[in-house]
Amino acid sequence: MSAAALDFARQHQTRFLDELKSLLRIPSVSTLPQHQEDVRHAARFVADELRRIGMENVRLIETEGHPLVYADWLHAEGKSTALCYGHYDVQPPDPLDEWTSPPFEPEERNGNLYARGAVDDKGQMYMHVKALESLMHAHQGRLPLNVRVIVEGEEEVGGEGIARFVREHPEQLKADFALVSDTEMFAPELPTLCVGLRGMIYTEIEARGAKTDLHSGMYGGAAPNPFVALAQIIARLKDINGRILIPGFYDKVTPPSQTEIRAWRTLPFDEEHYRATEVGSRVLIGEPGYSVLERTWARPTLDVHGMPGGFTGAGAKTVIPAKATAKVSLRLVPDMNPAESFAQYQKYVLSLCPPGVDLDVRLIHSGEPILVRTDNPFIRAATEAMHEVFHKDTVFVRSGGSIPIVGDFERYLKIPTVMMGFGLPDDNLHAPNEKFHIANFYRGIESIILFLEKLGS
Amino acid sequence: MSAAALDFARQHQTRFLDELKSLLRIPSVSTLPQHQEDVRHAARFVADELRRIGMENVRLIETEGHPLVYADWLHAEGKSTALCYGHYDVQPPDPLDEWTSPPFEPEERNGNLYARGAVDDKGQMYMHVKALESLMHAHQGRLPLNVRVIVEGEEEVGGEGIARFVREHPEQLKADFALVSDTEMFAPELPTLCVGLRGMIYTEIEARGAKTDLHSGMYGGAAPNPFVALAQIIARLKDINGRILIPGFYDKVTPPSQTEIRAWRTLPFDEEHYRATEVGSRVLIGEPGYSVLERTWARPTLDVHGMPGGFTGAGAKTVIPAKATAKVSLRLVPDMNPAESFAQYQKYVLSLCPPGVDLDVRLIHSGEPILVRTDNPFIRAATEAMHEVFHKDTVFVRSGGSIPIVGDFERYLKIPTVMMGFGLPDDNLHAPNEKFHIANFYRGIESIILFLEKLGS
Repeated sequence: MSAAALDFARQHQTRFLDELKSLLRIPSVSTLPQHQEDVRHAARFVADELRRIGMENVRLIETEGHPLVYADWLHAEGKSTALCYGHYDVQPPDPLDEWTSPPFEPEERNGNLYARGAVDDKGQMYMHVKALESLMHAHQGRLPLNVRVIVEGEEEVGGEGIARFVREHPEQLKADFALVSDTEMFAPELPTLCVGLRGMIYTEIEARGAKTDLHSGMYGGAAPNPFVALAQIIARLKDINGRILIPGFYDKVTPPSQTEIRAWRTLPFDEEHYRATEVGSRVLIGEPGYSVLERTWARPTLDVHGMPGGFTGAGAKTVIPAKATAKVSLRLVPDMNPAESFAQYQKYVLSLCPPGVDLDVRLIHSGEPILVRTDNPFIRAATEAMHEVFHKDTVFVRSGGSIPIVGDFERYLKIPTVMMGFGLPDDNLHAPNEKFHIANFYRGIESIILFLEKLGS
Repeated sequence: MSAAALDFARQHQTRFLDELKSLLRIPSVSTLPQHQEDVRHAARFVADELRRIGMENVRLIETEGHPLVYADWLHAEGKSTALCYGHYDVQPPDPLDEWTSPPFEPEERNGNLYARGAVDDKGQMYMHVKALESLMHAHQGRLPLNVRVIVEGEEEVGGEGIARFVREHPEQLKADFALVSDTEMFAPELPTLCVGLRGMIYTEIEARGAKTDLHSGMYGGAAPNPFVALAQIIARLKDINGRILIPGFYDKVTPPSQTEIRAWRTLPFDEEHYRATEVGSRVLIGEPGYSVLERTWARPTLDVHGMPGGFTGAGAKTVIPAKATAKVSLRLVPDMNPAESFAQYQKYVLSLCPPGVDLDVRLIHSGEPILVRTDNPFIRAATEAMHEVFHKDTVFVRSGGSIPIVGDFERYLKIPTVMMGFGLPDDNLHAPNEKFHIANFYRGIESIILFLEKLGS
């Protein structure tokens, strides 16, 4: 059986890739209102394809934002049920002028496919669809186990729709485990399962000073400057070493076990290579006493993403803006609680408010930190499947990123998630020139075929 | 003679205002490349009008940026020569959604004319043109004194073109005094001469961290964040009281005389009214121990105008931007030197550079602080002329703003400048809903007619 499904997948690689390119051409940027129709277009594309390959009960589930795509095939009596999750929305492509080829015109270069969403997550989500198609074909229109598919269109904008659906209709997603392919391999050729995720709170601090924009010549020295106020606040959010100064913020941080830290030390990680080729900064920053992997996987962090307001064009405009905003996110680690962390943050930021400005501290969205136990049959099947494809032992890593839905699956569906991803560290996630290594697209499909067959045997 | 010119000006008020509206409809935003043709269009409009009223040698003088408009009439033998200066370029109109009527569709409301450039400086520059037209008509095609007119199109973007022209061709602008109408009256109905201006240095601090934009989940805790670096720097540029922390920055500050400070105390200034109606912030900020007028006229200040970079759209994008920029300006007072102040600032900013980022500290443009002596015949003629129009004694004030060309006139032409302005404090200079009080447009024309006739008599 395995051989038949694998053969089918191998014979149709070119078509699979062409289909992915079609999906990548749809600019389904969920965060930008002008792309609302494109997002829906991508949802219909995924639904049509699930229907075509033989999945049942295919439908769009409306949310307050972008729709969910649902499908199932539930005729494998006595077998376990997989919940395959992915997202069809993508990050905004700006800054556009840093892309070598346009973000929504997929282009193959050097064995990679370049496009916004190539790896995050259209390409990885589509591996699921193509694995299911291959299995359907090899099993005469059946699947070796029960499968539900849920694909969302709001992952890059907080995922409120799917979170609410999982919370309110857990029975409609009843399954034994979830499969998520939205993570990366630790290194090329190294099969990887992600067993930990940071949580996050994404916030905005809006500072308002004068009632209208003022001329800095006339009013400089009397009118409060919202950017200066924000700078004063941000400068006091963490110290020069990167330690966050919010009172109580670290109280619930549980450090990784010594076993886990020892395992991380055996990973092929060259800090200098990482600095030079991935980050490219003069030095790496962060808390002293922690390795880079600990700092990015198991320590909370704070970043500023943008500071809209005032004059941002070329040249000079001497304005004291009436208001300015800082987009600030904090990554959380087990066992921090997003609501509690936001409350601590909000209270602290308000306590730093300089004279003359009013502050509004808003939570845009949040996600819980996750730690997956590795002693379950689903994780074992995943490691075996990947061994057959890559001929190497699987490594267990964490990710510094956040996939809030994994926490919701754990909390509301009471199921573990297998995070089996095939991205690479240099795939430029959320950045210009995002790519997906094409060989990994194919190996991902094969790994998922083998994984699902093992669990259905 | 006076009566004839004043009569002409009064009879043609409606036409004068209509002409000004036509000029205001041209979006001559000098700082935005897409308005380059509009800027030239405004220059031609001014040149055509100067030619029509009988000025001679009218021409556009090309610069590396936007052209200068030049005209003269030099047949009043034995009389002194006036140099009338103004600018036909305007500030960008953003944020557009805060304008009650569109910025380039002039609209009369409550005795005011609303448009970008209404008072700064198209409306005030056009008073000169209409005063000259009235004098030409009353004097049978002649003027009572010699006049040169120079109107620039780069005032809002640094004025490099006119600065170079004044520096390199002082003989072509030879005059006995300059007349600049780009300032405001201290209060409605109160004739005002501005005798002091702050200088400025307008700078950009660019912070570069990673070589490309990075995902804050994957890299947060290791990659430097340029916004955090800028915030740390800005927070150390001035203390919470507004005192600038650059070493040596205050060394050359000459405080105003006790006589000047006493005169300022007699001005009709209500700090609480200013806070509530002009600024509209919760409290005013600034250095303790100085009045608001001292803080805005006679103390150096620092403001941040915008912080381009990263993600500034609605919603969430979890990017660590490769670079971010802070647009920072500092106002200077007599006897600070812009080049020296910038050198101190640049050195200090570089000394604050946090680990992981590279800084580029750039000077965009600068202007010298100015103090005009009040014991000259031009200032006396100006006070007399305004007394006849307003029936009140003229007050001498300073402005917190910068008009770099006044310093160039002093340095290269060796002439004093009469800063006779008719704006009002609530004219929303550089902000949405800029306006010009229409009665002041007419009274300004009359004051200039009388002023020039006195100096020509």
